[in-house]
Amino acid sequence: MRRLSGIFAATATPLKPDLLIDEARLVDHCRWLLGEGGCDGVNLLGTTGEATSFSVGQRIGAMRAVAEAGLPMERFMVGTGAAAMEDAVALTKIARELGFAGALLLPPFYYKGIKDEALEAYVGTIIERTCEGDFGLYLYHIPQFSGVPYPVALVARLAERFPGSLAGIKDSSGDLANAKALADGIPSIAVFPGAETLLAQSPQTKFAGCISATTNVTGGLVARGWKTQDTADGARLMQTASAIRTAMSEYAVIPAVKWTLAELRGDAEWRRVHPPLSGLTDAEWTALRGKLAGSGLFRD
Amino acid sequence: MRRLSGIFAATATPLKPDLLIDEARLVDHCRWLLGEGGCDGVNLLGTTGEATSFSVGQRIGAMRAVAEAGLPMERFMVGTGAAAMEDAVALTKIARELGFAGALLLPPFYYKGIKDEALEAYVGTIIERTCEGDFGLYLYHIPQFSGVPYPVALVARLAERFPGSLAGIKDSSGDLANAKALADGIPSIAVFPGAETLLAQSPQTKFAGCISATTNVTGGLVARGWKTQDTADGARLMQTASAIRTAMSEYAVIPAVKWTLAELRGDAEWRRVHPPLSGLTDAEWTALRGKLAGSGLFRD
Repeated sequence: MRRLSGIFAATATPLKPDLLIDEARLVDHCRWLLGEGGCDGVNLLGTTGEATSFSVGQRIGAMRAVAEAGLPMERFMVGTGAAAMEDAVALTKIARELGFAGALLLPPFYYKGIKDEALEAYVGTIIERTCEGDFGLYLYHIPQFSGVPYPVALVARLAERFPGSLAGIKDSSGDLANAKALADGIPSIAVFPGAETLLAQSPQTKFAGCISATTNVTGGLVARGWKTQDTADGARLMQTASAIRTAMSEYAVIPAVKWTLAELRGDAEWRRVHPPLSGLTDAEWTALRGKLAGSGLFRD
Repeated sequence: MRRLSGIFAATATPLKPDLLIDEARLVDHCRWLLGEGGCDGVNLLGTTGEATSFSVGQRIGAMRAVAEAGLPMERFMVGTGAAAMEDAVALTKIARELGFAGALLLPPFYYKGIKDEALEAYVGTIIERTCEGDFGLYLYHIPQFSGVPYPVALVARLAERFPGSLAGIKDSSGDLANAKALADGIPSIAVFPGAETLLAQSPQTKFAGCISATTNVTGGLVARGWKTQDTADGARLMQTASAIRTAMSEYAVIPAVKWTLAELRGDAEWRRVHPPLSGLTDAEWTALRGKLAGSGLFRD
């Protein structure tokens, strides 16, 4: 098993007018993220990618389109979590077969108050039924949406039980203490905070990188800044990226990313979210555009 | 559109050793619930039925098995909610085609902080794409699991917009004030609390009945008791049923229902829950069995 590292974009998912996934634009965006966008890697179909709003069939279609586009799949992970274990097994197995380097696994997210032993058994089942070779499983800790946390002690047990498969965790809780506890306490796994701001706040912590919504637009700044943040130039890049994220976070982040991408790429087709999410209002976009004006993100 | 009423069991879903749905036992249980079990109706594949733990294909298979078993489908509703709108549309449409009297719709339950207008548009889309004729849509308010409430004002707007399709709501919040606000404020829809205890607590409120986990085992008591709870005999039946529910609610309710069914039906195959849920421990079951000993539920 190979552990991924670096600055990943949790890629947004472009939609066609009928709200199906626009696979051509998605492939183009993934290519752009790894090129001009400056990212080290891409996480397909996570929360920013609205994965759980699509049927299993749609998710597989998008995964296949990306995998067959000649992109460097060793730089890709993909979200494969689902409320139903059978769906999560199917998606994770297909991710491996398609050549993704890893899968990012939400816990089952309908029932709450799940016992730790039951969650451990669940993840164990997924690993045993899907993982082999270099393919790595990454846990996805985002309790504000899933309602089911992956406690640090549980992650440690899974890392010990499955050293050849449990590759890491994305911690999107926003809680720096939790992310540090994971990175400091379980050195065998790759720990990715869900926000580049945490990399700047705790430069001494051995994070593997980050997987972030806002690196859809700031990937280059963060990838260069993080690796040199002990220099004045690096620290300045991270400050710029953090300021952009802070501005975008004043709005609903997923549409904020999509509206900003529409502006950055000159492609209004990006301005579409899947129900139940809502788009930015014109007033919200005008305000956000104003806040981003001095950031250097756009040529203005 | 016809509005359902009466005491419904939110039926538990029996599983085979491989954790697939045991369709034959499910059909048998539905028949038993409407006969000896004493229920007026059955809600298939709700929260107690672990619906979201099964793939769409499995859910359709179970719906089809029940619909093709010669049961009185005018007494059946079925849970059709899903994280992905496309899945919810497909399941609701199939429910109507199979002859279910209605569908019970969870909100999309991954993203939180959904705007009311977006949730209204989501439900409107489901109704427009699936409802016709006598088939009724029932909203499923269970914020402790879905994380997305159906606020009373939103329900009122939907009832006004879709008088021929929006048939009712199941309120599983456990908040009597909310259930009363729905029943008193929106007389055109059928309001089902998620617990028979609320029927006993507020006999003057015009509830349509209830849809409950524990009526898998107490359906007869509640169906007789509720309709006569202004008599001493009726009130006593409701007290007995409430006491049984209170005892079962000290444990995780879904396995408690399944373990109690195993005892009641003399069929240990019921003692199986789908991940991520956990079964009762032997100690828990021994304790619960002891509490139920004097209830009259078992012949002891």
